[in-house]
Amino acid sequence: MSEKLIKFTNCNILRNGVVETSESLWVRGGKIVHSGGVPDAIVDLASKNALIVPGFLDLQLNGFFGHDFCDVEHIEESIDVVSRKIVRYGVTAFCPTIMSSHPEIYQKILPKLALQKGRKPDHAEVLGTHIEGPFLAPPKKGCHNAAVFQTASNGFADLVTCYGPTIESEDAIAILTVAPELNGVKTAIRELKHRNNSIVVSIGHTQAKFQDAADAVAAGATMVTHLFNAMEPFHHRDPGLVGFIAQIPEKDKSDPRPYFGLIADGIHVHPSAVRIGYLAHPDGCILVTDAISVGGVEADEFVTGGGVTVQKKSELEVVIKGTNTLAGSIATIPACVKNLVKFTGCTLAQAINTVTLHPAKCLGLSHRMGTLMPGTDADFVILDGFNDDSSEFSITQVYVNGAFAEFD
Amino acid sequence: MSEKLIKFTNCNILRNGVVETSESLWVRGGKIVHSGGVPDAIVDLASKNALIVPGFLDLQLNGFFGHDFCDVEHIEESIDVVSRKIVRYGVTAFCPTIMSSHPEIYQKILPKLALQKGRKPDHAEVLGTHIEGPFLAPPKKGCHNAAVFQTASNGFADLVTCYGPTIESEDAIAILTVAPELNGVKTAIRELKHRNNSIVVSIGHTQAKFQDAADAVAAGATMVTHLFNAMEPFHHRDPGLVGFIAQIPEKDKSDPRPYFGLIADGIHVHPSAVRIGYLAHPDGCILVTDAISVGGVEADEFVTGGGVTVQKKSELEVVIKGTNTLAGSIATIPACVKNLVKFTGCTLAQAINTVTLHPAKCLGLSHRMGTLMPGTDADFVILDGFNDDSSEFSITQVYVNGAFAEFD
Repeated sequence: MSEKLIKFTNCNILRNGVVETSESLWVRGGKIVHSGGVPDAIVDLASKNALIVPGFLDLQLNGFFGHDFCDVEHIEESIDVVSRKIVRYGVTAFCPTIMSSHPEIYQKILPKLALQKGRKPDHAEVLGTHIEGPFLAPPKKGCHNAAVFQTASNGFADLVTCYGPTIESEDAIAILTVAPELNGVKTAIRELKHRNNSIVVSIGHTQAKFQDAADAVAAGATMVTHLFNAMEPFHHRDPGLVGFIAQIPEKDKSDPRPYFGLIADGIHVHPSAVRIGYLAHPDGCILVTDAISVGGVEADEFVTGGGVTVQKKSELEVVIKGTNTLAGSIATIPACVKNLVKFTGCTLAQAINTVTLHPAKCLGLSHRMGTLMPGTDADFVILDGFNDDSSEFSITQVYVNGAFAEFD
Repeated sequence: MSEKLIKFTNCNILRNGVVETSESLWVRGGKIVHSGGVPDAIVDLASKNALIVPGFLDLQLNGFFGHDFCDVEHIEESIDVVSRKIVRYGVTAFCPTIMSSHPEIYQKILPKLALQKGRKPDHAEVLGTHIEGPFLAPPKKGCHNAAVFQTASNGFADLVTCYGPTIESEDAIAILTVAPELNGVKTAIRELKHRNNSIVVSIGHTQAKFQDAADAVAAGATMVTHLFNAMEPFHHRDPGLVGFIAQIPEKDKSDPRPYFGLIADGIHVHPSAVRIGYLAHPDGCILVTDAISVGGVEADEFVTGGGVTVQKKSELEVVIKGTNTLAGSIATIPACVKNLVKFTGCTLAQAINTVTLHPAKCLGLSHRMGTLMPGTDADFVILDGFNDDSSEFSITQVYVNGAFAEFD
């Protein structure tokens, strides 16, 4: 980690959610620092109309480049390969995501994943695991294996039995997706948040009604998993989770609306629905890829770590073989950011906030990432040819922990 | 009609959609006029923090005060009573609305309604009829009598056979609600707009998919009837009419999105859905009451002109007797305006635009109403205690055609 003081100058900076023009970014010791002093090096970006943005976060990534995070035997290698190669997409931190599995799988893989938490040079940081399931609603299984689904009739004890003692560790699990309407789950959420507040509880794969969402939030849930997908459809008289996101907070009361993941690949959710979800609560929107192992590989057919055979239907669509059931996406964060601008008419800066500032806040990490404020980690992406009204951009450089990350 | 020059002064004015503060409104000969000259009378509103807004329009009103516009025998009396008494709610113009009926009913009632078009002193103006049906989709019948529904396999000729020759008059029909996916309806729309462009074609009681909506708009439809009600539910991968409203117009292309009616009584559409619809396309939103004869009367049970027995379930809810099927609302325009502010967080001025500027534009009448611009009819409402961030207001005075309208 370089102790040299580097000044990136004559550029635009997306800082704490807002574009500052003709600015400079100062970096030393892997951190963003306050301006001032004599720099050891100056990177003049005047000719490029560059925009420096925080490194992208992906809170739901099942695998990529042929590696699947459900594959217990190869988890160290999978994490190493994906966290190194994903940097090319501007991603500097992510949550490896594990689909519904048997308890013995969790109990094997979670301790291994806990050891992977953090970062190696030139690698994206591993933020802790996003566990989806098995406390999910069978009618909303998506491509999960519903045979392992369960309720939590014993409350928190069932979580311990399922995930093992790492449920109380701060290193293993970052996000836990559950269906709050299931027997015992709300009680389990409340106890979990009491014992280990570092875990973000997210509502997903669920038949939750509006009131279930309210109860889950009261119990401590602060996120919704991939809004629109694997939940009740929006109905204008029983608007469910989508309506919960779309409510207006009462004056002088705290905002009850959770953050929400959204798959803006244009396949999982129609562009108009992406716009509806985003407009309903722009500050809560977090784009996630929900990408799977077949992303970034050439093969048309692929067996996932969970043993499911999936096939590519198009450049953007992967289904369970022989069905039309979507099996996670093969999208990248930059592709989703561009789509969000196209689908909603938001600015590029607003779209980038959904993969930087918002996920950092959701995980309670905005003191360390997602803002480019002095004191935060120097994880950032340099985009060329900035035009805030255009969906287009290209990534020219990515810095991880203050160091230029090389990628093919 | 007074030729005196009257100056309303020291007030706020909602003019062409925007609040102007500390302004004056000048009125002469039933019209808003340019400022200047020596007024014959001054109305000083300084002590009231008043907001003068255009008179409200209701584009979908089936009846009120015990009168039903489907009742052919009493239509003149019904129009007279409702247009006089509705002024107390700030409504200065409306479209009497006729549900699906037999052709002989239309052919009797439309010529009568054509004669009612226009306005008498102290009465709200009759803007022409809103005909809902009978070219509607049976699965989306709502409380219509599906036995009279039909398709238009002969295109425009079927419209003439159904409604009679008044279909080509500019006085009879203001709005025609049809289901564009039905056989022949798109062809009929195109021909109708070619022959009589004064009629607004609205998409409603329909199973229209996104593409049907696009085709209907291409054929000349410019409105959607009560968004969310009597249409396919919004689905995140097949978002239908709601998604069509929520799309973002392509750059440098004309906006394909129609205006849309919305029943913001809090019963027909959940508050979160009202917010989603409004946010999707604020400038297209037109609040309508869809109120029926039982509105404004004390009886708990009532037989409509169409012979349907309806009953009040609560102060805001009327159903077909013995069922849970909503039978139109008993809401008023001011109640819906207040709800829109509460449900969406829009300003009071923005909410009032949805019952003034937007419906006037939708009907091609903004040169004459809905703006308070000089040259337009002096139909306006004085609200006391204006606070643009509050949903509350009270109507203190209503002027119709420049004259103070008395109401009990």
